[in-house]
Amino acid sequence: MTEKMNRQWRLAARPVGTFKDSDFKWTEEPVPALNEGEMLVHNQYLSLDPTNRGWANETDTYLPAVKLGDVMRGGAIGVVEESRNPKFTAGDLVSGLLGWQEYAVSDGAGLAKLPAIPGIPLTAYLGLFGHIGLTAYYGLLDVATPKEGETLVVSGAAGAVGSLVGQIGKIKGCRVVGIAGTDEKCRWLTEELGFDAAINYKTENVAEALKGACPKGIDVYFENVGGEILDAVLLLINLGARISLCGMISQYNATDRPLGPSNLFMLIVRRARIQGFLVSDYMDRAQEAMTQLGQWLMTGKIKYRVDVVEGLEQTPRAVNKLFDGTNQGKLVVKI
Amino acid sequence: MTEKMNRQWRLAARPVGTFKDSDFKWTEEPVPALNEGEMLVHNQYLSLDPTNRGWANETDTYLPAVKLGDVMRGGAIGVVEESRNPKFTAGDLVSGLLGWQEYAVSDGAGLAKLPAIPGIPLTAYLGLFGHIGLTAYYGLLDVATPKEGETLVVSGAAGAVGSLVGQIGKIKGCRVVGIAGTDEKCRWLTEELGFDAAINYKTENVAEALKGACPKGIDVYFENVGGEILDAVLLLINLGARISLCGMISQYNATDRPLGPSNLFMLIVRRARIQGFLVSDYMDRAQEAMTQLGQWLMTGKIKYRVDVVEGLEQTPRAVNKLFDGTNQGKLVVKI
Repeated sequence: MTEKMNRQWRLAARPVGTFKDSDFKWTEEPVPALNEGEMLVHNQYLSLDPTNRGWANETDTYLPAVKLGDVMRGGAIGVVEESRNPKFTAGDLVSGLLGWQEYAVSDGAGLAKLPAIPGIPLTAYLGLFGHIGLTAYYGLLDVATPKEGETLVVSGAAGAVGSLVGQIGKIKGCRVVGIAGTDEKCRWLTEELGFDAAINYKTENVAEALKGACPKGIDVYFENVGGEILDAVLLLINLGARISLCGMISQYNATDRPLGPSNLFMLIVRRARIQGFLVSDYMDRAQEAMTQLGQWLMTGKIKYRVDVVEGLEQTPRAVNKLFDGTNQGKLVVKI
Repeated sequence: MTEKMNRQWRLAARPVGTFKDSDFKWTEEPVPALNEGEMLVHNQYLSLDPTNRGWANETDTYLPAVKLGDVMRGGAIGVVEESRNPKFTAGDLVSGLLGWQEYAVSDGAGLAKLPAIPGIPLTAYLGLFGHIGLTAYYGLLDVATPKEGETLVVSGAAGAVGSLVGQIGKIKGCRVVGIAGTDEKCRWLTEELGFDAAINYKTENVAEALKGACPKGIDVYFENVGGEILDAVLLLINLGARISLCGMISQYNATDRPLGPSNLFMLIVRRARIQGFLVSDYMDRAQEAMTQLGQWLMTGKIKYRVDVVEGLEQTPRAVNKLFDGTNQGKLVVKI
């Protein structure tokens, strides 16, 4: 029997600014034999997310920093190929932090077994029915509690999370304004997803455009971006506004100390709050969100798109699509 | 009968940085005759508060900006001298935004009638039993919900609000760390008020000192100051931390755009929140706080001090004591 080889991307250097190819090293090594309790997962799709960038820094965030020389951390979906773990059997579909590699050896900790539902493509488990869908669902509904008739602003609105947040906001009866980085994305938001307005932050003055698009002020802001957009939003928040802090992608590649919002005082004037959250805190409520998101998908109330890059080799270059704004929907790599 | 004269400080210019004498104009004019529904209040004590500075700016905050030429807005306590308003009679003790002047003509809107309690000095109604006490009580207990065993950090800790916040935190079983601007103030906090530790932000590295004083991290932060202290606190917050945003005095005199916190991302990492509030939202619950604060005062569990400046003429100079850190407790002017 030929020895089975594993292809991997390992973290080779601490990135400065955006990822460079030289921050990663391609390695090929034999898949090790399984110990009792372990299983071998054949990864199918890799999820690329803004949070990957933070994990590569030297300092720990909500997870420990990836060590230099280790396989790069990343969410993935795979099929169990061989199992010496009684809880999993060959053929099981699993998702978790399986890493930027073709094969992962796992003891099952942190892995979720997924139902194979006819008609649901595998990539959906990395998006709508995975951490993306849960992030949008709970980050909006639980953290920011939007009410009918309120105005919701979403930054990173054409991204995987943002596009769902806006659509859920529409379902809940909000006026929804999205902020994105190209006219094409803005058109997608208003023409296909039903957003009430969209602002191109690269060509428009965001503060002025927000004033026009939010004549009744802003009640809920779903923050994916950070930086100047947050500052512009703060000037327009209404009494009791809720800001759900999901991510701050504009700062992940910052080499200088990121600039914070100058207008935080508005939180006092408007008795408003900024609340950070992590999707991992909602895992025990995943079923509720998936059921609801599935119904909305079936009834045509939400749409989503997936941007598939072919080939594990492409991963280091593909991940920067998240930061230069060229991805179109949930970014995944087909291994 | 000699015409009764009113002495007043009017806003003469928009201040740049700290208040200057030339930002105000001293005027003397006859007290006007009362119309039906009005009353004449003889002001006794004027309350000087950091928020005065914001009201003098051109832009509205939670109240409209004071107009140039108008009597400067300010909280005060006074005695009704003459009344054509059926709800008030001569001799009533009242408090409200009576302004920087000796006499105020009022229709009663926004004024509270105060009980004259034997043994309670008039100045207490501008401090412990006024907006100061309510701000500390609800801003800590309602907005930040401290629990026994948690670590509470207070900035502006030797100020009127901060010193009460720390003492209430001790009553609730917290480890309490105060940040103030002189060694004398720090000694007062630890030796007289029972704070567990105090940090002099002018002579110590706040980030390092906080690490030492908060070995279990920070669960609650009561923010009076803004700027770099908030940034240092964010690096040490625990899971689910609550930041109660009361004021940002370090920024009120800023002539440049104030710098925001660089470490806001920690709100995500620690699933924490920043919540702004205004004491005016708690006025309908004032009785609860005053009763509780009164009990704590009687049983020696809280102490407070009042810094009395003599003479209405001194007001423009006195108000800057709030910003240069030379006030000792609640700052009032005896008219």
